Amino acid sequence: MLTREGCPKTMLSIKDALEALEGKWKLLILFALSAGPKRFKQISKEVNGITDRTLSRELKNLESNKLIKREVHDTFPPTVEYTITEHGMSLERVIDELHFWGLAHRKEVIGK
Amino acid sequence: MLTREGCPKTMLSIKDALEALEGKWKLLILFALSAGPKRFKQISKEVNGITDRTLSRELKNLESNKLIKREVHDTFPPTVEYTITEHGMSLERVIDELHFWGLAHRKEVIGK
Repeated sequence: MLTREGCPKTMLSIKDALEALEGKWKLLILFALSAGPKRFKQISKEVNGITDRTLSRELKNLESNKLIKREVHDTFPPTVEYTITEHGMSLERVIDELHFWGLAHRKEVIGK
Repeated sequence: MLTREGCPKTMLSIKDALEALEGKWKLLILFALSAGPKRFKQISKEVNGITDRTLSRELKNLESNKLIKREVHDTFPPTVEYTITEHGMSLERVIDELHFWGLAHRKEVIGK
């Protein structure tokens, strides 16, 4: 089992991942975008509890980590859509495992 | 694929997980403890960059979420050890996936 090794190199790549995904919002935003491209207001509605200011900051950070793309469409007025990248989609298994664990955690700690 | 569904209930359990694991330290501490019970100073040495104050706060939080256990041994002077619980060990797959993704992310964004 990987987690029994406790090796410093593994620790480093886990740290890389946690730093790129820090906070409770980024993965939720990516999860919302995994269903398809969305506009700012749509994301803000789906990710319950996030403020516009935080969402704006998180979107910029996700873009700089190549996890999403911001696209400006030449409409009148111009519209902006956010799309998950392939690199962002590669987080799917992380999100899946968090989902399963979250269910178990609710039973174990919160749901009692 | 789970993440394409974008359903609010899945979002909730992901949020539960992210709230229990918030910040960049908790999973690293659990990873260190997955190799066996450890004392405060050992954990602090292995989790590079954490301050004693933060470690102390995170250990309390992990304990309240039933992810670790604090055990006081009747030695002279008394010694304290932290052990990962079964519920904490159930995060193994999350940690594994984060490890794999962290490796890919370093190549994609940091390592270039």
